Amino acid sequence: MGNGPETFAIFLIDLCWKNTGSAHSWVLACAHCWPYSNPCTMNCLVVIAHPLTDSLCQTLARTAIDTLIAQGHDVVVEDLYQTEFSPSLTASERQSYYGAPFNADALQSRIAQLLDAEAIVLVFPTWWFGFPAILKGWFDRVWAPGVAYDHASDLGPIKPRLGKLQRMLAITTLGSPWWVDTFVLWQPVKRVLKIALLGACARNCRFEMLSLYRAESLASAKVEGFRSRIRATLGRWK
Amino acid sequence: MGNGPETFAIFLIDLCWKNTGSAHSWVLACAHCWPYSNPCTMNCLVVIAHPLTDSLCQTLARTAIDTLIAQGHDVVVEDLYQTEFSPSLTASERQSYYGAPFNADALQSRIAQLLDAEAIVLVFPTWWFGFPAILKGWFDRVWAPGVAYDHASDLGPIKPRLGKLQRMLAITTLGSPWWVDTFVLWQPVKRVLKIALLGACARNCRFEMLSLYRAESLASAKVEGFRSRIRATLGRWK
Repeated sequence: MGNGPETFAIFLIDLCWKNTGSAHSWVLACAHCWPYSNPCTMNCLVVIAHPLTDSLCQTLARTAIDTLIAQGHDVVVEDLYQTEFSPSLTASERQSYYGAPFNADALQSRIAQLLDAEAIVLVFPTWWFGFPAILKGWFDRVWAPGVAYDHASDLGPIKPRLGKLQRMLAITTLGSPWWVDTFVLWQPVKRVLKIALLGACARNCRFEMLSLYRAESLASAKVEGFRSRIRATLGRWK
Repeated sequence: MGNGPETFAIFLIDLCWKNTGSAHSWVLACAHCWPYSNPCTMNCLVVIAHPLTDSLCQTLARTAIDTLIAQGHDVVVEDLYQTEFSPSLTASERQSYYGAPFNADALQSRIAQLLDAEAIVLVFPTWWFGFPAILKGWFDRVWAPGVAYDHASDLGPIKPRLGKLQRMLAITTLGSPWWVDTFVLWQPVKRVLKIALLGACARNCRFEMLSLYRAESLASAKVEGFRSRIRATLGRWK
């Protein structure tokens, strides 16, 4: 794929049916990759972390998935609850954390998903101004040494390994109003994702976040507006 | 117990042997509770969240426990890994989150520990500038509606229920240097504990935090110095 819309010329090359269930869409190609592959599509990993299958988060995730598919991207969905992901880093994993290789025996398929991803969409509720435990565990276990980063030999700053990862969008719901997250808590989830995780493991990854505040008492028009923001944001992933 | 050292007179009443294994200690009584109960002791819950039994965190936890016992406090230890705590909020728990009562069937003993605690000591490694998943899950599941707080009828700010909780000390280890936590990440763990959790559930609780930075490459003298800080901090819990 190319390096961003500002760095390459866009050519309209095709109009085709896509697997959206209801609509067809334009497919755009960049000079960088055309005509060698499916133009400007990415391997997208959608990670969902909500225990209820009829939750607002699932609706938002569906919106993201449909939009990505409509754009022609390859989409892999990892629903951490549905796949019964165990979030606690195990004793043997911790024991091997500083002695190569990290014991990833129980994590191979999830590590392969992460390493294959050119883009990640996270969909989760914010609980206590943090990730749900099941999503925190995905970072604790899958973003492991030798996978997402390497330890420095002097135990200084860690070295990124997720060079393939170009985009991340975090979609989250919060009960609180926006000003509490912004001015009282100072956006801990956003800072941890952008600075701690991507800053350490994927420095060239572009990060965006869509937060749906006061999500416990929303009018449906607000939800629809938020879904439109998801579509618009992912629509720019070309 | 009394309301803090500044609000009541202190009387020295007893010198007795305590179950420290090696030392005896002075026991102080406040005018508020003497002579009705063991003077100025608290029910202390120590929550440990590390997968290895020989870890630095376990050493620090042992220091905290020994100090609390030496002070005469009643100590309950909750080692989340040893008790195989499952951190993911379940579907039935989430389903009952906004409809009283919260389904706490699988959490009764842990909820009783929380409700009984006058003081909490948390001992955990900071991973990705957040709690380990197993500790995040303790907050997600045990600090539940009807337990740690009540929803407001209009879904406005939640109402605290942990009125008994007077003290919290968070003891944590981090790989990073102090300035990254403070000036780059803006201390997300401290802010979430102090503002999001205690600010919502136990507004009168005094909060302290001891962070051991660069914990991956520490000289033993630094560890000993940090243990002294734990003893000194808990020594003031009277």
